[in-house]
Amino acid sequence: MASEKKFNTLVVGSGGVATITALSLDLKQKSNVAMIVRSDYDQAVKEGYSIKSCDYGDFKGWRPTNIFKSVEESVANGEFYDYVLITTKNIPDGPTPVKKILEPVVQNCFKSWLKFPEEVRKDKVFSIILIQNGIDIETEVYDLLKSDHLIADGVNGPKVALLSGVQMIASTRTAPATIDHKCQDYLILGAFDSKDELSKQKVLEFRDIYLNEGKNVVEIDDKVRWSRWRKLVYNATINPLTAIVCLDFTRTLIFSGPNEATEFELLRPAMKEILAIAKAEGYIIDEEVMTFMIEGEKQVFYKPSMMVDTERNQLMEIEVILGNPIRTAKKLGVPTPYLSMLYNIAHIIQMRNKEKLGLIKVDEATSTMQQ
Amino acid sequence: MASEKKFNTLVVGSGGVATITALSLDLKQKSNVAMIVRSDYDQAVKEGYSIKSCDYGDFKGWRPTNIFKSVEESVANGEFYDYVLITTKNIPDGPTPVKKILEPVVQNCFKSWLKFPEEVRKDKVFSIILIQNGIDIETEVYDLLKSDHLIADGVNGPKVALLSGVQMIASTRTAPATIDHKCQDYLILGAFDSKDELSKQKVLEFRDIYLNEGKNVVEIDDKVRWSRWRKLVYNATINPLTAIVCLDFTRTLIFSGPNEATEFELLRPAMKEILAIAKAEGYIIDEEVMTFMIEGEKQVFYKPSMMVDTERNQLMEIEVILGNPIRTAKKLGVPTPYLSMLYNIAHIIQMRNKEKLGLIKVDEATSTMQQ
Repeated sequence: MASEKKFNTLVVGSGGVATITALSLDLKQKSNVAMIVRSDYDQAVKEGYSIKSCDYGDFKGWRPTNIFKSVEESVANGEFYDYVLITTKNIPDGPTPVKKILEPVVQNCFKSWLKFPEEVRKDKVFSIILIQNGIDIETEVYDLLKSDHLIADGVNGPKVALLSGVQMIASTRTAPATIDHKCQDYLILGAFDSKDELSKQKVLEFRDIYLNEGKNVVEIDDKVRWSRWRKLVYNATINPLTAIVCLDFTRTLIFSGPNEATEFELLRPAMKEILAIAKAEGYIIDEEVMTFMIEGEKQVFYKPSMMVDTERNQLMEIEVILGNPIRTAKKLGVPTPYLSMLYNIAHIIQMRNKEKLGLIKVDEATSTMQQ
Repeated sequence: MASEKKFNTLVVGSGGVATITALSLDLKQKSNVAMIVRSDYDQAVKEGYSIKSCDYGDFKGWRPTNIFKSVEESVANGEFYDYVLITTKNIPDGPTPVKKILEPVVQNCFKSWLKFPEEVRKDKVFSIILIQNGIDIETEVYDLLKSDHLIADGVNGPKVALLSGVQMIASTRTAPATIDHKCQDYLILGAFDSKDELSKQKVLEFRDIYLNEGKNVVEIDDKVRWSRWRKLVYNATINPLTAIVCLDFTRTLIFSGPNEATEFELLRPAMKEILAIAKAEGYIIDEEVMTFMIEGEKQVFYKPSMMVDTERNQLMEIEVILGNPIRTAKKLGVPTPYLSMLYNIAHIIQMRNKEKLGLIKVDEATSTMQQ
């Protein structure tokens, strides 16, 4: 059986999401699946996972092909991964930015690739799939691959494909190595660079490795940057505002000042700035999407992810969701007073959480900060 | 002795500030001093106050002339007050707006006034002193005095004077009826309406009743509206921002985004809007005041009052400090995107605190709110 599996896949992420992603790959039987498991390691190795999945049913003692304690361990034995899936939060200003997670994997896979015979080598592509929020998240990965010690050109290092994923999957870790998966896994997948034919091939190939027909869904996305801008209409506005006021979205709306100020003086002006930046890049998003996103969640007392993060004193994805759009806007000359205000306030709260987490220290004697 | 005291004064406010204010009046021996005392009533009546005051020294068992449990009780016996001092927080959107505190006092003092013989009556002036933050806080008091059942014209009701006070006094209630007063009581006092000669006379009269030479300070302010705008440069910007991020001012600054965004992309733009509204009203405030207010507290890790309020889940004075300036700006055509953003966000947080305090209820079945 193992010899039939053409591919090696590595899933990096947090409990619930990563486990169902790994399970989907495992069930398809086209790849050896490695997972990085930190706190649940002993339980996962000894007894395997207990899973209730809306897509696949119940499992007791399920294990992927390999379980590793760390990213470093996953590449320590000279393994080459055809696909590395990153499903973590993307916090470049936090202690584990994506480039830090990826660096040892990239370095070691590049070394392993060199050991393949030349005829094998040329068909091996190292594909990274970022299943994450935000925009311009691929930049730091390209930077990493272009850095001094790595040359991803198919001669000195494997050719590289960068894939962009947006995943809807309500999957939660409810106890050690115990997963409750409630909504169908729906993955939207595209090439970050829509002109990169290799990445576009890999999108199709990965769909074949991942899709369990009738169970999960993989939608191919040809205009992934447009989709990411569209998602930011929600994520760069409702998400940080609810985090700042630390309330669910419905309360954030009904606790509004006069004339529905939350919607008309905060959210819509900020949303229009996202539309304007996207437009300056050539991506036209219809204004109706604003109404759709506001109305869609007006009545469900939903807590957006960033709000849940602040509520738990965790770090938020503000750089990829707000920082990057604002930096793009600056380059393109698009004014963003509302987004900047949300970003500047969210940034202060991010630092407040960093202090609580012990990531920074404030010296009250000198009024300075150590990072 | 009692017969020598020409005036009746009533002090309404919270523990530490109100007590030292009442003590100052009492020591001057020119007025009978009544205080409203809620939670400390029994202790205050039975054993009096224990006070450590930087201005006046130590007291054991000090009592004003009268102690009342409520505003209603203070006027139940037909008392007429020459001066009513309001030193409470000013929260028109809260459960005890100033007009609600004042209404029974005004109604009953007007009735009592009618009972004086005519020659006494014409010299009796009913003076209200609002020692509070914000701007346009006198409006609701004028509205109250002009309402149907009250006519403050010296014929049907006493003449009325409205005085504006800004008090610096670090005085804290440390235990029941126990007060620790740490900084010299410095009262800036003026007439709300600088053209109202009666109020200007009363400013001078009240100084005489209140000032204990060499101990406390009373500074006469001829341009009280200018002073109130100037104070808002701090209060409408630093105060709500620190409340929103729930941090002391120094952290709010050093946790800033790139290029000192807290100072240059949040506070100064908002401060400039206050200067612009004041200017549209004819009050010129020098831009240097912005630097003065930011630099003055850059290094002291000070928690502004509004931030302390949110930290304790209490209501904030956002309407008198932000709402009123923004409403004035709208009338005068001055754009206030930064102040409005701070106000709109602070408003949501105010409502969050109202829900925590049980002042509003959210019905999740209908996504509506009962106030």
